[in-house]
Amino acid sequence: VRAGALAEARAPQAAGGVLLVTDENVAPLLPAALAALPRHVLRPGEEHKTWEELGRLLLALDRAGLDRDGEVVAVGGGVVTDVAGLAAALHRRGLAWSAWPTSVVGQVDAALGGKTAVDLGGGKNTVGAFHFPRAVVVDPRALATLPLRHVRAGFAEMLKSALLRGDEALAAAERLTPEDLLRATPAGVAAIEACARHKAELVDEDPFDTGARRALNLGHTFGHAFEAAALPALLHGEAVGAGLLCAARLAARLRPGATADLEPRLAAVLKRWSLPVRLDLTSASVLQQMRRDKKRAGASLRFVLPLQPAQVEIADVADEADVRAALAAVLPGL
Amino acid sequence: VRAGALAEARAPQAAGGVLLVTDENVAPLLPAALAALPRHVLRPGEEHKTWEELGRLLLALDRAGLDRDGEVVAVGGGVVTDVAGLAAALHRRGLAWSAWPTSVVGQVDAALGGKTAVDLGGGKNTVGAFHFPRAVVVDPRALATLPLRHVRAGFAEMLKSALLRGDEALAAAERLTPEDLLRATPAGVAAIEACARHKAELVDEDPFDTGARRALNLGHTFGHAFEAAALPALLHGEAVGAGLLCAARLAARLRPGATADLEPRLAAVLKRWSLPVRLDLTSASVLQQMRRDKKRAGASLRFVLPLQPAQVEIADVADEADVRAALAAVLPGL
Repeated sequence: VRAGALAEARAPQAAGGVLLVTDENVAPLLPAALAALPRHVLRPGEEHKTWEELGRLLLALDRAGLDRDGEVVAVGGGVVTDVAGLAAALHRRGLAWSAWPTSVVGQVDAALGGKTAVDLGGGKNTVGAFHFPRAVVVDPRALATLPLRHVRAGFAEMLKSALLRGDEALAAAERLTPEDLLRATPAGVAAIEACARHKAELVDEDPFDTGARRALNLGHTFGHAFEAAALPALLHGEAVGAGLLCAARLAARLRPGATADLEPRLAAVLKRWSLPVRLDLTSASVLQQMRRDKKRAGASLRFVLPLQPAQVEIADVADEADVRAALAAVLPGL
Repeated sequence: VRAGALAEARAPQAAGGVLLVTDENVAPLLPAALAALPRHVLRPGEEHKTWEELGRLLLALDRAGLDRDGEVVAVGGGVVTDVAGLAAALHRRGLAWSAWPTSVVGQVDAALGGKTAVDLGGGKNTVGAFHFPRAVVVDPRALATLPLRHVRAGFAEMLKSALLRGDEALAAAERLTPEDLLRATPAGVAAIEACARHKAELVDEDPFDTGARRALNLGHTFGHAFEAAALPALLHGEAVGAGLLCAARLAARLRPGATADLEPRLAAVLKRWSLPVRLDLTSASVLQQMRRDKKRAGASLRFVLPLQPAQVEIADVADEADVRAALAAVLPGL
């Protein structure tokens, strides 16, 4: 994490060749050293995080002649790092990659975990691999050119991170403003760094997401379903923000004695950031997505329940009535 | 390795669901316990080891609802285990798989190394992953139903393995007949087992193919180019058999004092097995494929040179004249 890292970037060297992967939004903003590299430009947006885009990138890696000691350099948001990282995992059975995340979600979450994926068959991240980048360079100044909506959405992941870290982190997140991120103020840089470090620690402890790291799914069982069901599309962070409210309500319902009253506190922050706290979705469409995620008949859904700041419980919930009650936190007419 | 293992198979259980992957040739021959599993049937043949078939299989895994504690059970030849293993590596970022290879190449080589891949963009195995199966069950009796041409082609990989193991193994391979494989005679079962163990040992020693395991590429730099250039198509083993002759000639040319006269010995065995020792290809088309494999301008090609039984050298060859001279072992008009 270093403000200004991108502007000072030097072009990576690799014996087997280098291909820079970015998207149409980021490409015009590349610093000269990176702009000089051979590149493949993805179409921007979550709707292009697809099997088909992955296939095109793999063809480009083949045409560029990268071999096993080559390197993929991903510069962009979570979609770019997810697709580029997966292509790096697969081209010639795996080559090195590095990530220069330029979105809030990328800097605090997506680029850091070694999780790469694309969407196939209607579900999110159905096809992917664990493939850890050689290096991740986080430059908070890259956020200056983001659309405000994307900055706000990314903050929802920072709020989740703060909730997992504790009361002090949550209070700091409550004081943060979009300007802190857009201008990379000391408070903004510190907040990004705290989130990135927390994520990196959990990933170190549990690289393959079978233990401690699962806490990071807080808000995501709901969030993924919102994201998949929403028309017009919700940004990932917007969906996760709403998911946090549902997770807090579910925790209060299932563990009534053990939970702080987190939902109003979270809702107040989300509102201040103009993030959606009511979604224009039917519970039927959301539940259908959640059933789709759970796949096998009879299986329960897994949720991360926020009990207190820095205290969560992983719970398998079998009763759909509990899920419906939690969805009422953000869905009308329930 | 156990003759009769397939007939005695019990259906695997996995908490996250099981999907059996096979091809149209093997599906009608499945024993009852495996035939009862949900299945996805691939189109048979090397020409269907593609990115598109992989996508269809991944959709099937999604529809079947397999989650991370599910298992993919691959029953078939090298194409089935390559495609199924890669799908297992990618579905939900990786789930377990087991392999029941039913072809000679599968039993002695393809199913054992954790290397999975499909073809994309004209090259062989351009997209893949290392994903080691939980178990590999080799039943030599499965070979009884193979077309004779496939048994013969598979033998070329056994000949390669024998050459890498030493003079005694090579002599045993020279005594083997197609009937030994088709009827799973003691000599046939022993030969399969020796190849499979040798491969498994090299894979244990060097799982990611950066050292000792590279010896297994003997005959394959030439073989891959023959396979890619040939019309009508050559089977993988047929191409590797011809590749062994070229590798032997290249070794004799580059290391004249250090090589046994392996080419005539190998050619005699291949002829006895009715395997091609002359290919109806132009050197231009083969060299084009080899340049395609080497990708970057100025890079040399890597060959495994057989010096003596059980003694090989890995050599990077920059001079195309050497490669042309080696190709003359199997190409007319050179």
